[in-house]
Amino acid sequence: MPKKPVPNQGRKKNMVKSNANALRIIPLGGLGEIGKNMTAFEYGNDIIVVDIGSIFPREDMPGVDLVIPDTSYLQMNRDRVRGYMITHGHEDHIGAAPYVLREIPAPVYATKLTSALIESKLKEHKLLGSAKINVIEPGDIVEAGAFKVEFIKMSHSIAGTCALAIHTPVGVVVHTGDFKVDYTPVDGQLMDFNRLAALGSEGVLLLMADSTNVERPGYTMSERKVGETFNNLFDRAQGRIIIAMFASNVHRIQMVIDAAVSRKRRVCLIGRSMVNVARLSMQLGYMDVPDGYLINADDLDRYPDDEIIVITTGSQGEPMSGLSRMAFQEHKKLEIRPGDMVIVSATPIPGNEKSVSRVLNQLVKTGADVIYDALAEVHVSGHARQEELKLMQALIKPKFFIPVHGEYRHLYHHANLAVTMGVPEENVLIPDNGTVIEVTKDEMRASDVVPSGAVLIDGLGIGDVGETVLRDRKHLSEDGLIIVVIGLDHEDGTLVSGPDIVSRGFVYVKENEDIMEGARATVRRVLDAKLYSGISTGALKDVIREALSRYIYDTIKRNPMILTIIV
Amino acid sequence: MPKKPVPNQGRKKNMVKSNANALRIIPLGGLGEIGKNMTAFEYGNDIIVVDIGSIFPREDMPGVDLVIPDTSYLQMNRDRVRGYMITHGHEDHIGAAPYVLREIPAPVYATKLTSALIESKLKEHKLLGSAKINVIEPGDIVEAGAFKVEFIKMSHSIAGTCALAIHTPVGVVVHTGDFKVDYTPVDGQLMDFNRLAALGSEGVLLLMADSTNVERPGYTMSERKVGETFNNLFDRAQGRIIIAMFASNVHRIQMVIDAAVSRKRRVCLIGRSMVNVARLSMQLGYMDVPDGYLINADDLDRYPDDEIIVITTGSQGEPMSGLSRMAFQEHKKLEIRPGDMVIVSATPIPGNEKSVSRVLNQLVKTGADVIYDALAEVHVSGHARQEELKLMQALIKPKFFIPVHGEYRHLYHHANLAVTMGVPEENVLIPDNGTVIEVTKDEMRASDVVPSGAVLIDGLGIGDVGETVLRDRKHLSEDGLIIVVIGLDHEDGTLVSGPDIVSRGFVYVKENEDIMEGARATVRRVLDAKLYSGISTGALKDVIREALSRYIYDTIKRNPMILTIIV
Repeated sequence: MPKKPVPNQGRKKNMVKSNANALRIIPLGGLGEIGKNMTAFEYGNDIIVVDIGSIFPREDMPGVDLVIPDTSYLQMNRDRVRGYMITHGHEDHIGAAPYVLREIPAPVYATKLTSALIESKLKEHKLLGSAKINVIEPGDIVEAGAFKVEFIKMSHSIAGTCALAIHTPVGVVVHTGDFKVDYTPVDGQLMDFNRLAALGSEGVLLLMADSTNVERPGYTMSERKVGETFNNLFDRAQGRIIIAMFASNVHRIQMVIDAAVSRKRRVCLIGRSMVNVARLSMQLGYMDVPDGYLINADDLDRYPDDEIIVITTGSQGEPMSGLSRMAFQEHKKLEIRPGDMVIVSATPIPGNEKSVSRVLNQLVKTGADVIYDALAEVHVSGHARQEELKLMQALIKPKFFIPVHGEYRHLYHHANLAVTMGVPEENVLIPDNGTVIEVTKDEMRASDVVPSGAVLIDGLGIGDVGETVLRDRKHLSEDGLIIVVIGLDHEDGTLVSGPDIVSRGFVYVKENEDIMEGARATVRRVLDAKLYSGISTGALKDVIREALSRYIYDTIKRNPMILTIIV
Repeated sequence: MPKKPVPNQGRKKNMVKSNANALRIIPLGGLGEIGKNMTAFEYGNDIIVVDIGSIFPREDMPGVDLVIPDTSYLQMNRDRVRGYMITHGHEDHIGAAPYVLREIPAPVYATKLTSALIESKLKEHKLLGSAKINVIEPGDIVEAGAFKVEFIKMSHSIAGTCALAIHTPVGVVVHTGDFKVDYTPVDGQLMDFNRLAALGSEGVLLLMADSTNVERPGYTMSERKVGETFNNLFDRAQGRIIIAMFASNVHRIQMVIDAAVSRKRRVCLIGRSMVNVARLSMQLGYMDVPDGYLINADDLDRYPDDEIIVITTGSQGEPMSGLSRMAFQEHKKLEIRPGDMVIVSATPIPGNEKSVSRVLNQLVKTGADVIYDALAEVHVSGHARQEELKLMQALIKPKFFIPVHGEYRHLYHHANLAVTMGVPEENVLIPDNGTVIEVTKDEMRASDVVPSGAVLIDGLGIGDVGETVLRDRKHLSEDGLIIVVIGLDHEDGTLVSGPDIVSRGFVYVKENEDIMEGARATVRRVLDAKLYSGISTGALKDVIREALSRYIYDTIKRNPMILTIIV
């Protein structure tokens, strides 16, 4: 059994008494998932940060637009931050960029597409120029304080993905980033097995690796498998083809374009992020559409149905996305109709199952030929399964191992996998977000805890929606609200107006006047009893709330939020 | 392509002008799923109802305790209801019993366990005796008006499951209920292949069949497969074994008991529904525990760890369930600890993925050996896959086919499966809830629509939570609430008190006093302008709400609900 960190054993927060010659690694931020969105590496006076991603919100966070990692540890140490090393351009690795770079500016290092996606984010937030973004190539080495960071080409579901070999004074740390093994990548460029193997031969102190698919045996299929399925499906399509997928999967989009062009179909991109990413990818040479093949949504009617392919967003069932609006006939430019072939090239991210299902049902109802993951291999994962994770262990042969990028149980099973591959049990550590892990040539241990976790963004507010606000929102959403308004005489506290009762989200009032009348009577009884004439307004509110709460629960077994307003 | 009903083609609701000699079939109620929870069969003056189940609530129904089918059509025709035929005892087939039987009493027919579960529900609602419950055996035929209903033994994930052969004046309808094919059922009693085949030979007019697993190729494994996995796991367990599963899967519980007893482990049942169902099952002879093997949770400490098996609820990650409370160390009788083996014998029902995941992570953190569906075959479905559905078509050879029990896309694929098995395309109809399907010897068509859908139950209120209330709850949950209280002079409408502002679920007020002050200033500006002195209170409220809403959106990009109270 791998050892687990015992965080914060009697040590004060932020008062880190550490081995000055140790490398310190701190996963920062996350909800459920550990070591994914942002990780700090610290040696002496220098800090580098790997990834600045946003966090998937939990279902109990209504109204929250975005969740980002808590940056307070970095803010306390902002003068020591030497750079941001970004592995790839997915939201969970770059989505917090506008918030983090504004507060703690430092140079950013990333490959072409990743850089372009970060820049486009900064532009949207009117923050362009707030941090210098350095475009690097796989193979490049970046110097940042005590660290030399080497970018190593990997395969994943977005172009330009890299692992990092972080050369530190105590040894080399290999951080895989997100990866899968793909022996037949769409762009023909293999992940850099040779460099990984060479690092392994030279000696790697610590491996940190992607745990997402550790529960799955075998290998993840090549992205090309999806291309084969597309080709087979396209051969059978008689009318228009509409494909929904993640805009960021540039290689998959390219496969669709290639298959379209070989069949003389025009390509139409629909959806803001689809158009945006495709534009960037074409500018940067990641994507190629022959002249004349790209058409505008307004021109769809000018081509026969069997000469059209539409690529759009919404593969996660997002209600405002292209696919959803097309399915429900709410899209201005395109309605799905019988004769269309619709391909949903994705599997639902956990939590999205029901919204995806809703869109699939609606698509099938339109009479179109609808293909999704239960029916054909229209999607493969971007993450390595067990045998690929074993290959990584075999290549790197690390002394120490930290599983990252997964929920606790994934990290746990990944830790066990490393042990079966020969990493000594005592050299494996399962981290938690906020855990400070000290690594020297000889030892790895959890030494401390720093503030970490999630900061909620709602509209322009960052972090002002906390536990209390969420608890109120949950309470309001479950049984609604009752407001009691009473006017009391200044002198003797007798009722001069009201009680008036306003409710929202409680019952349909018109059909439940008796409950409302009962509620008014309850408040009147409390006041008429005059037992509370001497007490403070606050105490009187409590008494009214309690009496009303009891009346409503007894009557209808609900617990609405009750607010009393005394004038 | 199978034909689809075009509901309500210009006909008035409830004004059914039907062929008096036709059988009328009406699926009633459901959210997303069709033909599952309750179905009416009507001929002449007689109605029978198949199943009276509750409906899984949708995620956008906060605070809703239970959802039941709309019974208004049955209420309008209550004198004609001759009986309820219940296929099996799962919640989605009996959960609405207390509400339906109270409103529309008629005899209920069901096998032993199903009857006992319905009775236990009625007892809980203090409604015992409100309907006569007739215990029948598989093979029995019930006469109800124009119908003869034959109960046919089937395999499913609860004991006592039956299909129905409904003998009507126009021909025989076979309704499969929920089923799978299990050649090695735990109780040794095969589903009645012979009777189904005999019906097929004699001629079946219409088949209605379970579509749940139609997207899955091949066969669902036998329940015994799970028993084999349990035996292998138990052999490896060194300490306590804790298994979570649905209380209703009596056969699976029996397999655990058998495996426990053969290893001299005592059996402890934890969880209200687990204890309740097991007690009923033992009384009825569905379950058997040798004397002395059943122990109380209070006595767990009296036995060595390797002589204990605990069977509990919570396999869906329900926060208040046995398993969840044990995992988070909140259970009074049992805390999971290192050395325990925990088996979660289920797959998440769609929508429950995240809560299951949360409990699994916590279980792994306790240091126990945690086994779940991603790691071992600890669960099999209760529903037939493609090859089993084909077997059903082959045995029954129906003239007409209606796929039921599934979302639209499942029904659609099941319709196609029937067509590939030889049912003519024009003899297949995909229903919707509320569709009236008329069937004669020669024809099947959608003839009308009656009220159907879902009735929400929150506390004691049935149906008083509708669209408006849910919309308010959603609004409140997303951006919270702001209440503005102002006192205006009776005579000249000048401000005499306030504006006071109260908020809930909006921002953390103490840290956002400036927003609150801005809000008060905004309201004051509206009133000071005196442009609205002549207008009604309602109109003034609108003006204040609009101004405040604009201020708040401009300041923080949120849209709280705004209520203005003028005294």
